[in-house]
Amino acid sequence: MAASSWITVPQGCPFTLANIPFGIITTLQNNSRRPAIAIGDFALDLSTFAAQRGFDGLSAVNKDNIVVFFQPTLNDFAALGRPFHRQVRAYLQELLSENTKLPEVLRDNDELREKAFISMKDIEMHLPMEVRGYTDFFAGKNHAFNCGCIFRDPKNALQPNYLHLPVGYSSRASSVVVSGTPIRRPLGQYLEKQELKVPVLGPCRRLDIELELGAFLCRSNPMGEPIDVDEAEDYIFGLVLLNDWSARDIQQWEAVPLGPFNAKNFGTSVSAWVVLTDALSPFRTPGMANETTLLPHLRQSRTDNVFDINLEVELTPASGEPAILSRTNGKNLIFSYAQMLAHHTIGGCPMEVGDLIGSGTISGAQPGTLGSLLEASNGGKQSFALSNSLHRTFLEDGDTVTIRGWCGSDPTTMIGFGECSGRIEPSPKTRWLHS
Amino acid sequence: MAASSWITVPQGCPFTLANIPFGIITTLQNNSRRPAIAIGDFALDLSTFAAQRGFDGLSAVNKDNIVVFFQPTLNDFAALGRPFHRQVRAYLQELLSENTKLPEVLRDNDELREKAFISMKDIEMHLPMEVRGYTDFFAGKNHAFNCGCIFRDPKNALQPNYLHLPVGYSSRASSVVVSGTPIRRPLGQYLEKQELKVPVLGPCRRLDIELELGAFLCRSNPMGEPIDVDEAEDYIFGLVLLNDWSARDIQQWEAVPLGPFNAKNFGTSVSAWVVLTDALSPFRTPGMANETTLLPHLRQSRTDNVFDINLEVELTPASGEPAILSRTNGKNLIFSYAQMLAHHTIGGCPMEVGDLIGSGTISGAQPGTLGSLLEASNGGKQSFALSNSLHRTFLEDGDTVTIRGWCGSDPTTMIGFGECSGRIEPSPKTRWLHS
Repeated sequence: MAASSWITVPQGCPFTLANIPFGIITTLQNNSRRPAIAIGDFALDLSTFAAQRGFDGLSAVNKDNIVVFFQPTLNDFAALGRPFHRQVRAYLQELLSENTKLPEVLRDNDELREKAFISMKDIEMHLPMEVRGYTDFFAGKNHAFNCGCIFRDPKNALQPNYLHLPVGYSSRASSVVVSGTPIRRPLGQYLEKQELKVPVLGPCRRLDIELELGAFLCRSNPMGEPIDVDEAEDYIFGLVLLNDWSARDIQQWEAVPLGPFNAKNFGTSVSAWVVLTDALSPFRTPGMANETTLLPHLRQSRTDNVFDINLEVELTPASGEPAILSRTNGKNLIFSYAQMLAHHTIGGCPMEVGDLIGSGTISGAQPGTLGSLLEASNGGKQSFALSNSLHRTFLEDGDTVTIRGWCGSDPTTMIGFGECSGRIEPSPKTRWLHS
Repeated sequence: MAASSWITVPQGCPFTLANIPFGIITTLQNNSRRPAIAIGDFALDLSTFAAQRGFDGLSAVNKDNIVVFFQPTLNDFAALGRPFHRQVRAYLQELLSENTKLPEVLRDNDELREKAFISMKDIEMHLPMEVRGYTDFFAGKNHAFNCGCIFRDPKNALQPNYLHLPVGYSSRASSVVVSGTPIRRPLGQYLEKQELKVPVLGPCRRLDIELELGAFLCRSNPMGEPIDVDEAEDYIFGLVLLNDWSARDIQQWEAVPLGPFNAKNFGTSVSAWVVLTDALSPFRTPGMANETTLLPHLRQSRTDNVFDINLEVELTPASGEPAILSRTNGKNLIFSYAQMLAHHTIGGCPMEVGDLIGSGTISGAQPGTLGSLLEASNGGKQSFALSNSLHRTFLEDGDTVTIRGWCGSDPTTMIGFGECSGRIEPSPKTRWLHS
């Protein structure tokens, strides 16, 4: 792969030639949702590129499958499988590299360049996939441990099942939204004090974030047929940053015995550009050590099964300067996505193209590396300082939370996800609050 | 409405003129999935009926919306809303009634009758809706109480939140299947004995049913905007019978702290014909008494908010005679579907057309009225007799479970759901069991 592109990629821009993430765009001139890739400060509109015969040089794209570049989501593109994604990405990298062997297709084709490249500031991003199922795991062991300490004690922090299987639950797909979508503070039932027995209805008072990675799936398995852990990576289209907004007071009241529900179904934000599994491949790394002897179906042959992704959470209050809430890394997972999928399907659950799989909250072990306010505020017991002027226990109306993620530091080989952000809007006013 | 149809409806047939349920069919001659209604022992193919101008006499059907009768699911028909469903159903009832005022449209139209009616024995039924989200509630109070007695004790059987809100959880939409689809016994992790600490992988040993009703939704709400409890019935397209197959051993090991997951995602069966809310309307009845003062958003004005539906569960072993496992009634619910939707959306969760909402397991208070084997076997502690020759603790391979449901007993006004059935197939053989 060429080191750099004839398109200028500014220093620190996540969309290098080594990346080539896929997303769904619209513009003021054309409000049809359509696929694009990101390079530098530009989107390359793949519907225009395909219509103008840009794919004529790639035999993998033919008259039967070219239709995927004209769809309003990436689901059909994803469903063509990882070998197809790999060929399309490699072809686009070739065309965009500064010493491309095919300069006539794009670099020296003024008309196509003019039509297909759109400045990032002129595009609106949309949900990249139609989200089918959304499963959220709990594979961030530090987070699980910290929560266990808050709600129980350090000796019993991890539940007995925790090290034996990737704990997870089905969550709500319909409330997954693209980065930038405002998040309304949910109303809900909770106990005003834990010693009370009768709940109130009110705006959530303990509104939280969860710093996660999300994986979109590109392949389905028939119902009744488990996915082999060593084949499971073929099912993963790519990754996004994910913020699983959480209402801790609602959660505490509702979650026994069937798990979180309204605490998690009012909004989940994902970053707009899907970074393909192949792009992440140079950043493979082992996850957290698990000394438990896993059951055979969870024993993955390769041990470099998670990714070394730098993660950063920033909070910007309604008025005031942004401050960093957390810096951590995507390797703080005790189960890989492949293990999550092997577990998810061991009973025969059919996965679908477009399923979103959350990793669980990613925390380090130290203050300043935590993926939720619940942990940073020690269960809401104490306010903590993000900067000299900014203190929080939980989120306030007007707060904007922005997650960033990137791999590597070399300007030509680093890749990034861009941002996953959302701003908290006040709860709706309803007559129920005054009855 | 006329008392009876010129189509013979055999005694005990659930598909009377008072019913007119909607489903999705294929035939040997035409394998395109398409909508139909059921009357007696016949399906009326609505795609043929519409193509042959059968809807010309109904102004609600026009060139823009007639396309819904040619779709492979009922989602688009449902999305047209309850006033539309009401007009279509009333029109078809008029055409099918023995003293129809429009005999020329169907009764006396030999060609259309010949083309559009198909004998039930010549059709295959499919999932009536593309299931978007699947939420399963826990509103059968007797079931919740019985489970609480098994896992805790009668004094603490109901959790503190239970009477204040309809407890529910997001479940897995991709494994919802139509009645008749075989269900494979899931593999999974569980403790062989509760006192052990290390799980095994094996075929589920405590495979169970859950007798439920399911509601399909026909209307969406914008994210962030709760549904008013007194408007919530407008969101309910109709009801089906639902069997939420459950793996109790897997559930017990996995469900802390995030709720059931693999225990519930390997198969959920629904009956094929959706009985519209209007058809059920004559059978409204109050649900179970709840002496708790509900929060304002859950106070539904009308109290006859559930349905008097006779429910019956039959078990047929691989060889041997069928036996009745349970007889109970759909009124054994402490929250209505309207209350479930008001709760589901109070935090702003967006509901979608095609969402499936399970009621929770419906049990009576006595032996012989229980909706799960977990209850009938007292937590798996004792085998029980279904007949002189048939005993069970949990399900065995080859068992077929069939749920039936109907309202009323008068032959012309009764309505029924037909059957929701599934047969248990053995677990897959995998190398993981022998490693």
